[in-house]
Amino acid sequence: MNKTASLLIIGNEILSGKTQDKNLNYIAKKLANMGIVFSEARVVPDIEKEIIFAVNELRKKFDYVFTTGGIGPTHDDITTECISKAFGLKMICHPEAKKKLEEYYKDRPGTLNEARLRMADTPEGATLIENPLTSAPGYKIENVFVLAGIPSIMQVMFDYASQFLEGGVKISSRSVSCNLIEGDIAAPLTDIQNKYPNTEIGSYPFIHQGKYAVTLVVRTTDISAMNNAADEIVDMIKAKNGIIIEDISE
Amino acid sequence: MNKTASLLIIGNEILSGKTQDKNLNYIAKKLANMGIVFSEARVVPDIEKEIIFAVNELRKKFDYVFTTGGIGPTHDDITTECISKAFGLKMICHPEAKKKLEEYYKDRPGTLNEARLRMADTPEGATLIENPLTSAPGYKIENVFVLAGIPSIMQVMFDYASQFLEGGVKISSRSVSCNLIEGDIAAPLTDIQNKYPNTEIGSYPFIHQGKYAVTLVVRTTDISAMNNAADEIVDMIKAKNGIIIEDISE
Repeated sequence: MNKTASLLIIGNEILSGKTQDKNLNYIAKKLANMGIVFSEARVVPDIEKEIIFAVNELRKKFDYVFTTGGIGPTHDDITTECISKAFGLKMICHPEAKKKLEEYYKDRPGTLNEARLRMADTPEGATLIENPLTSAPGYKIENVFVLAGIPSIMQVMFDYASQFLEGGVKISSRSVSCNLIEGDIAAPLTDIQNKYPNTEIGSYPFIHQGKYAVTLVVRTTDISAMNNAADEIVDMIKAKNGIIIEDISE
Repeated sequence: MNKTASLLIIGNEILSGKTQDKNLNYIAKKLANMGIVFSEARVVPDIEKEIIFAVNELRKKFDYVFTTGGIGPTHDDITTECISKAFGLKMICHPEAKKKLEEYYKDRPGTLNEARLRMADTPEGATLIENPLTSAPGYKIENVFVLAGIPSIMQVMFDYASQFLEGGVKISSRSVSCNLIEGDIAAPLTDIQNKYPNTEIGSYPFIHQGKYAVTLVVRTTDISAMNNAADEIVDMIKAKNGIIIEDISE
């Protein structure tokens, strides 16, 4: 059985529309490659009770929870307080994290102020997730991985955190795009889905050269079933005089 | 009191990393303009029990719920079954929706097949949300607004649905970007936040010309508080010899 994962995006800036989130898509691709099923994502504001509620719901439901955002030095960075409360754990200044910050700021006397030292806080018992870019670490507590919100830092943290994740058979996909319209292929597509129940076939309309077109995606851990189902999709498209725009395996 | 809203993105394609969602950001900006507080977003896969669970949790918690995706003609479009079950309502072929489809397809005999007719299904008692682009409508049932996933169609549906939403005082914001680093301004920023408790001040680091910089965003329905807080932020930045990169009111 593949493990399941969820993502909790903590950030008023996403909900206000100021910022377009880029972390979900990065994590989604990495998880698919590792054979971990990405089962849910949530975006919540920087409000303590909302963060605690979501963390507690997600960590019970899924094997892994990633959080992004809210671990910087400013007043609106409240993730660590919230995670500590969600677990009923004391928040401490993590000695190893403090050491990393001291090392990073040692040539800039006075800069490791009280605000920056907050970035060494973790719930008691957390394992650090290293951040070679700016030293302030993320951390793992039980099945919850607390990462930064800035994409470049989130990415190095996610890659470091990968060592703690149990992968499975990679979830492969083949995406066949054609110039037909969903409504014209729905019935034969249902037949193909029913014939290959261990694949997940998705149908995603898009606009190609000003006209509606569709991408049919077959996802599964079973590569041979994937190719058989996708080959039948290609044949079905040709039988309907459709033109294949793209046929990509990932 | 401003009304609250949430968004439920129904889509394996977002969780697989194949597609980058564009609807959240559009809805976020529209809601802020209308003075509706965007309080949570979720992304769930095309799995019945997950959709039902999320819809029921969100519709009890927030004034409005928008869903995107899963209302097309193919086998993986299960949103309407799920919404009907979530409300304990019968799913019916909505006569007015059927009429719209018949009108749209009247010059293309045979194209309004069984699959396309599924796009006229709604829970019993739903009010249609018109879609001038491709005729297949969304709908509103109690406080839940069921919209398409394709951004262009979602947008016309959202705009039509706006007539059913009760707006409030617009949530304005002023964003001041500067070349200082979060950790150097955290303490005075906390003081400003404490002085203006009816504003929400966020601090968002970003990379500017290869160096860390920060955007400080003041959001509130009280424009005079917004400007007072932002003016103090500008003064604080200048006092620390920072350079203002941008100062934008929205």
